[in-house]
Amino acid sequence: MNSFGNIFRISIFGESHGPAIGVVIDGCPAGIKISEDMFEVDLERRRSGQKGTTKRRETDIPEILSGIQNGVTTGSPITLVTRNKDRISSDYELFGRIPRPGHADFVAGVKYSGNADLRGGGHFSGRITWGLVAAGVIAREIIKPAEVEAKLVSAGGSADIEKAVNQALAEGDSVGGIVECTVRNPQKALGEPFFYSFESAVSHIIFSIPAIKGIEFGSGFAAAGMKGSMHNDRYIDREGRTATNNSGGINGGITNGNDIFFRIAVKPTSSIKKGQMTFDFEKEEMTMLEIGGRHDACIALRMPVIVESATAIAMADLLLIDRGINQRKQDFHSL
Amino acid sequence: MNSFGNIFRISIFGESHGPAIGVVIDGCPAGIKISEDMFEVDLERRRSGQKGTTKRRETDIPEILSGIQNGVTTGSPITLVTRNKDRISSDYELFGRIPRPGHADFVAGVKYSGNADLRGGGHFSGRITWGLVAAGVIAREIIKPAEVEAKLVSAGGSADIEKAVNQALAEGDSVGGIVECTVRNPQKALGEPFFYSFESAVSHIIFSIPAIKGIEFGSGFAAAGMKGSMHNDRYIDREGRTATNNSGGINGGITNGNDIFFRIAVKPTSSIKKGQMTFDFEKEEMTMLEIGGRHDACIALRMPVIVESATAIAMADLLLIDRGINQRKQDFHSL
Amino acid sequence: MNSFGNIFRISIFGESHGPAIGVVIDGCPAGIKISEDMFEVDLERRRSGQKGTTKRRETDIPEILSGIQNGVTTGSPITLVTRNKDRISSDYELFGRIPRPGHADFVAGVKYSGNADLRGGGHFSGRITWGLVAAGVIAREIIKPAEVEAKLVSAGGSADIEKAVNQALAEGDSVGGIVECTVRNPQKALGEPFFYSFESAVSHIIFSIPAIKGIEFGSGFAAAGMKGSMHNDRYIDREGRTATNNSGGINGGITNGNDIFFRIAVKPTSSIKKGQMTFDFEKEEMTMLEIGGRHDACIALRMPVIVESATAIAMADLLLIDRGINQRKQDFHSL
Amino acid sequence: MNSFGNIFRISIFGESHGPAIGVVIDGCPAGIKISEDMFEVDLERRRSGQKGTTKRRETDIPEILSGIQNGVTTGSPITLVTRNKDRISSDYELFGRIPRPGHADFVAGVKYSGNADLRGGGHFSGRITWGLVAAGVIAREIIKPAEVEAKLVSAGGSADIEKAVNQALAEGDSVGGIVECTVRNPQKALGEPFFYSFESAVSHIIFSIPAIKGIEFGSGFAAAGMKGSMHNDRYIDREGRTATNNSGGINGGITNGNDIFFRIAVKPTSSIKKGQMTFDFEKEEMTMLEIGGRHDACIALRMPVIVESATAIAMADLLLIDRGINQRKQDFHSL
Repeated sequence: MNSFGNIFRISIFGESHGPAIGVVIDGCPAGIKISEDMFEVDLERRRSGQKGTTKRRETDIPEILSGIQNGVTTGSPITLVTRNKDRISSDYELFGRIPRPGHADFVAGVKYSGNADLRGGGHFSGRITWGLVAAGVIAREIIKPAEVEAKLVSAGGSADIEKAVNQALAEGDSVGGIVECTVRNPQKALGEPFFYSFESAVSHIIFSIPAIKGIEFGSGFAAAGMKGSMHNDRYIDREGRTATNNSGGINGGITNGNDIFFRIAVKPTSSIKKGQMTFDFEKEEMTMLEIGGRHDACIALRMPVIVESATAIAMADLLLIDRGINQRKQDFHSL
Repeated sequence: MNSFGNIFRISIFGESHGPAIGVVIDGCPAGIKISEDMFEVDLERRRSGQKGTTKRRETDIPEILSGIQNGVTTGSPITLVTRNKDRISSDYELFGRIPRPGHADFVAGVKYSGNADLRGGGHFSGRITWGLVAAGVIAREIIKPAEVEAKLVSAGGSADIEKAVNQALAEGDSVGGIVECTVRNPQKALGEPFFYSFESAVSHIIFSIPAIKGIEFGSGFAAAGMKGSMHNDRYIDREGRTATNNSGGINGGITNGNDIFFRIAVKPTSSIKKGQMTFDFEKEEMTMLEIGGRHDACIALRMPVIVESATAIAMADLLLIDRGINQRKQDFHSL
Repeated sequence: MNSFGNIFRISIFGESHGPAIGVVIDGCPAGIKISEDMFEVDLERRRSGQKGTTKRRETDIPEILSGIQNGVTTGSPITLVTRNKDRISSDYELFGRIPRPGHADFVAGVKYSGNADLRGGGHFSGRITWGLVAAGVIAREIIKPAEVEAKLVSAGGSADIEKAVNQALAEGDSVGGIVECTVRNPQKALGEPFFYSFESAVSHIIFSIPAIKGIEFGSGFAAAGMKGSMHNDRYIDREGRTATNNSGGINGGITNGNDIFFRIAVKPTSSIKKGQMTFDFEKEEMTMLEIGGRHDACIALRMPVIVESATAIAMADLLLIDRGINQRKQDFHSL
Repeated sequence: MNSFGNIFRISIFGESHGPAIGVVIDGCPAGIKISEDMFEVDLERRRSGQKGTTKRRETDIPEILSGIQNGVTTGSPITLVTRNKDRISSDYELFGRIPRPGHADFVAGVKYSGNADLRGGGHFSGRITWGLVAAGVIAREIIKPAEVEAKLVSAGGSADIEKAVNQALAEGDSVGGIVECTVRNPQKALGEPFFYSFESAVSHIIFSIPAIKGIEFGSGFAAAGMKGSMHNDRYIDREGRTATNNSGGINGGITNGNDIFFRIAVKPTSSIKKGQMTFDFEKEEMTMLEIGGRHDACIALRMPVIVESATAIAMADLLLIDRGINQRKQDFHSL
């Protein structure tokens, strides 16, 4: 189940400390101009090196193995890969026996009967999101003129994100954060009832990203405390613009043309230097675990570009599906 | 896209005021005992008639059209339908011209070029969730001994749910609510990396339900304000039990055997008696809209059984997939 | 796996002697005019009553449960059902113990651990193709102006089909046949590399029909004995017309605009009056089995309309996929 | 649509003269031993160099990018790639203007609006089957103890295959052929009604292979001329063995445990040296086309291993699906 999408379909592969990671992008329309430098900005945003994130250096330049000729998509699958370098795996041998709290070590062990590659988190590593970001570059071209923009608005409960991250770093600890995402100029009519609503598609791909704990669209959890007379967004013009946007640009699972808006909760990085009492499955006793190596103090710092990319991918799929089924010649107001 | 699931796959159909609504359930193992009265409790919980919900009477007894013989599943698709009775459609003719704020009228008009059945919300009606609940009865049998239980914990921001609903009713208004869902005795190892994580599967189906605005697993949005040392759930025994359960029973998108826990935000019902200023797309001017007919004052009142059913359906699919791919003979601790 | 198609997706249900059989059609564009009498011709062609086919009377008028309002598709799933009447099931109790040669009795018993409904062939009955034909009526509207036409060209090895069927009837036996299918005015560019070629899609759905043993496109098996210089179809005009049509209108899995042509082999009906020595799985000894009841002497007589319908369904899916991904503004010759 | 399979799912990518070709294999059980030399025999069988096939040298050693650690599958996607070397693309520039008869040049031009990579056939090249064969090596491990074996039984209509190929070579022409495939020790119960019958799954993937014109299972087209009393396979023991095998080991779309058997028609290679009159889409006139370069005189020579691999892949998917849904504890005869 390492694929997402029905028509615009991406397949992700790789492990953190394996030879390479990558993505295959199927169902991409032919004739889209894609140059290698289009990947640089987004991959750089995702990359390590920011304050509080791991010092590990990832070259991350995508090699194009298929699907693009002379800078133009050909209609056949696009394959993007990057080699893993600078791999130090010695830290990870312990985690089959003493699975790290909050990590996938334990469940991966159960699910794959001890055969999972646990080095660096293996296929569960946040590093696998490289493929999401690379595919997102292409998805963004498909959904134009819609534009997706996400930003980190708080960390550890504070709007002073830098301070919160520095404090966690100093304590050998980590912090979570909130990411807000807005899509401007979205196409109308994206979202397929009953089971591929806009929110279903987006939440499906967003919850594939490691460390996500929650998502809310428009008014979100606040809606639970509101009255209908306050929550309903009244239409104000023939384009379907609304006076408020509690719906987050979505009604009945379908985009209405107003800005799309949603928020995401990111948990604190699970790998921390600080000692943790946990279970040793071999000795069958509690033990103190201190996790060495380099780890992000705030994984949420990398999230905005990952969330943007995932959203663009979901939207590209919804757009091609709607375009395929419905060939609209008229607008709602002229019915 | 009116189907959900890869192996255990349900397909939903029907409109609120059409002849019937129903569901086809494919990929159900043969040999499961299903009697008609097993549907009664859940469908009754979903049904109208509670205080604050619509007075419309829905008989709702499922007719079994296929897939069950002598009270046992046969391995072929199970089809359950119920007739729509007591349909009063005259109210709805206006909504093509003056789409109701918060409803799908406008987007349905755009998407289907004016051909959508808008009577009673058509295919966008909450009534369509009947099929979810009916299919959930079967899914619950598949996932045993796991048990799903949801409850409404607040309405309109208050734990005194009855009072909040009564007040909204008195004002011709409506209120939202919060639903909490717990799965006890869940199987370990449910969830398929990268794109069919447990949260992806559950959020996908949950956001198909009309009126859902947000979902959070385990610590959810609170995680964003926490530190890793506090958030990480330490293992305490060889079964993988954890001292805390901030993960909500899920690590790396895979169930770890601890209770699964998530919360859902439900918006206030969009249909309200109270007048609303909105746009008349024919006259191209603002107008006052008062919505007659019978409507739930708090759609969240019906949600617990719908959420339970959707969760059981997602879990059944994840269970059959995992069972198909992985034939585990051993537990993690004995590697 | 009782669904076919990616965007235009049909789901089939029902057993021969269960309450009803039917089909759900998802992904159908809104705005297509569908009247009940459009189903009559095709369903009548499929129906019993012809010489040599079973005397069982099937009313077969489809009831529309959803998706069509005032004779127009609404964009939501279309559900068509028909009740099973005139069911005489007493003949079938024996077949769990003495599975009929050539039938699915044995494999259904193994696969569903004895829970399959074997009455009248259950879900394996040719009767289930009712849903294919009903869905085909709608698919034909989508693929217009393409037109699909199939005919039975031989039975029991003879072009005198009536004589071959009469002879088999007289002997309490049955005969197979060959069906040829042509699509005129097909759209160009249908077929998705690598795994959803035109032939992949069509053969996939055709081999779902009971009793099909082979399929060949264009020159088919004769191609194996030909030379390339003879087999290649040379282009003769700017539309891409070819001088010959050994390709059957398909190159590289994609339609080229010439007529599509393929042939299908149908086996003789498995149920025959004539006695057959076979195994009694309860007594564990050979036994003579004579199958009573009414059975088609030549199931191939019903096949043309079923093959047409299946082909239209596959084409509708391919058309919506291609339309979704590729928005062509120009023809090949103007590149 | 470059993916095949529901649970065991492969995704193929690459163009003949692009940087690399490869395959991603998803849904592979963890714990299967895979060494690099397991690929050698099959890939060598597929490789060029045999008499009558192209002289182009393909190194073809697979590089494992993910999913295998220390010679064992990990449960995450397996990615296998090989670099394209020895690419001479100058021959192919002409084919956008004068599409080769029998090739995909014309349809690729239409479908992808002139953006398709036509060099060496691009994504339509037989070279892409490298990924099928590589994935087949893994699929064969999953379906053990079942064993798939295919062989070329005739070329150009003659059983003296070498002679037929030599003659075609001497004439600058090509010939087609017939491949027969047998599966020994197949699992019972593979095949999912209604739309994923064993034949549906196998024909779907087989018709993805370039140059296939027909497929027939068991008695195949001969069944059309037979009577039921002759065609029916009588059971002879409690395992379900049958006296004859006209069914090809499949009843009702489900394997019955007897050997599976099918035959495939392969057309003559489309690229031939011999001159062909065809249309010049730029000059809009007929022209003589002589195709230079190296080409197989009989593409069917490479087919046996490709057909075996495709069959194993389809069977692996069917096996994991059946295993997932049905947990059988008993055999048919003990019901």
